[in-house]
Amino acid sequence: MTRQAILGFSTRGRGTLDITDAVAQAVAESGVQVGLAHVFVQHTSCSLLITENADPDVRRDLETIAARLAPDGDPDYRHDAEGPDDMAAHARSMLTSTGLSVPVGGGGLLLGTWQGIYLWEHRTQPHRRAVVVTVLGACSDNL
Amino acid sequence: MTRQAILGFSTRGRGTLDITDAVAQAVAESGVQVGLAHVFVQHTSCSLLITENADPDVRRDLETIAARLAPDGDPDYRHDAEGPDDMAAHARSMLTSTGLSVPVGGGGLLLGTWQGIYLWEHRTQPHRRAVVVTVLGACSDNL
Amino acid sequence: MTRQAILGFSTRGRGTLDITDAVAQAVAESGVQVGLAHVFVQHTSCSLLITENADPDVRRDLETIAARLAPDGDPDYRHDAEGPDDMAAHARSMLTSTGLSVPVGGGGLLLGTWQGIYLWEHRTQPHRRAVVVTVLGACSDNL
Repeated sequence: MTRQAILGFSTRGRGTLDITDAVAQAVAESGVQVGLAHVFVQHTSCSLLITENADPDVRRDLETIAARLAPDGDPDYRHDAEGPDDMAAHARSMLTSTGLSVPVGGGGLLLGTWQGIYLWEHRTQPHRRAVVVTVLGACSDNL
Repeated sequence: MTRQAILGFSTRGRGTLDITDAVAQAVAESGVQVGLAHVFVQHTSCSLLITENADPDVRRDLETIAARLAPDGDPDYRHDAEGPDDMAAHARSMLTSTGLSVPVGGGGLLLGTWQGIYLWEHRTQPHRRAVVVTVLGACSDNL
Repeated sequence: MTRQAILGFSTRGRGTLDITDAVAQAVAESGVQVGLAHVFVQHTSCSLLITENADPDVRRDLETIAARLAPDGDPDYRHDAEGPDDMAAHARSMLTSTGLSVPVGGGGLLLGTWQGIYLWEHRTQPHRRAVVVTVLGACSDNL
């Protein structure tokens, strides 16, 4: 069984957007009971992240760390066509994930208690982002 | 064909634990001959890594590099509820992988000669960690 | 439906090699219409990357950033059996991806307009690299 959906999200500029519920809904609609849910952004200046969903300071600190590892407006960047956050965004995409898979069991996402799935916008301006969710697996728990 | 198992591992605090054999066993028990084995940690302060399995200094050096990129007790972190290694652990998870897939062929993991699969504990204290292994594919080489 | 191919690539030393067309061809040959294409390098000193395919300066800048995060010949490295680029290569592999999955739809890769798939050689010398492509999914759009 294979099911696929393309979801659209509007980001508000740099920062994380919790897309866990949207992915969970795509899994529920797929009818897959056991398998994998694969999530993929069709962009190179935003990325996906699974991290703690309880304390928002975690995501704020991850932003702080990303800003050190891939600063905006670095004088060594050659690629700055779209501004000082352009190359930094590609670099943050490199250091995180364009796609990720989450196991599906019992018809739902097998995330840990504190795990959320986030779309991480790396550009400073709001963007419209396309996310492909592909669910593969078996439709019965009775494998 | 889809098979899933949840494995438990006890870590000894920060460092890498070779889980290649356990994943290979889950693949063998699945009966899948050609496909994918997906491995996923249900936590945000440990992660998964495929790296060289020969010289343990490689993993020691990776720890050194991780300590530079995501140091413990950084004064800029706001999230430190569980101690100085708390936020560093989330950051190291961000920079590596919560989940990864390895191709399956001939009924086994298609790893390169020098590749091992490691559970990387980022907290300084020992933890009990849950790892979901999902195997998808065909049960016959005669595709 | 599961199809698998092992592709070989000759790198020219450190830098990125666009393998998008080779992966797309493996997908076309698989007959899979909807599903996932998983790409995996059987090595620990090169990796995979999805990034912008338009301006080559993006990949040059990513190399610059990688050189800061995982420099060659760092005096703190213990593992240097194969030269000053040896441990740096393992570290760059850690920070990027040994494997990645791309959604398949309409019989082709569902990449965004500006996304390319790159084999990133992290060793300074040319190498021969094995890449396993596994395609899973349904052979009909009529799911």
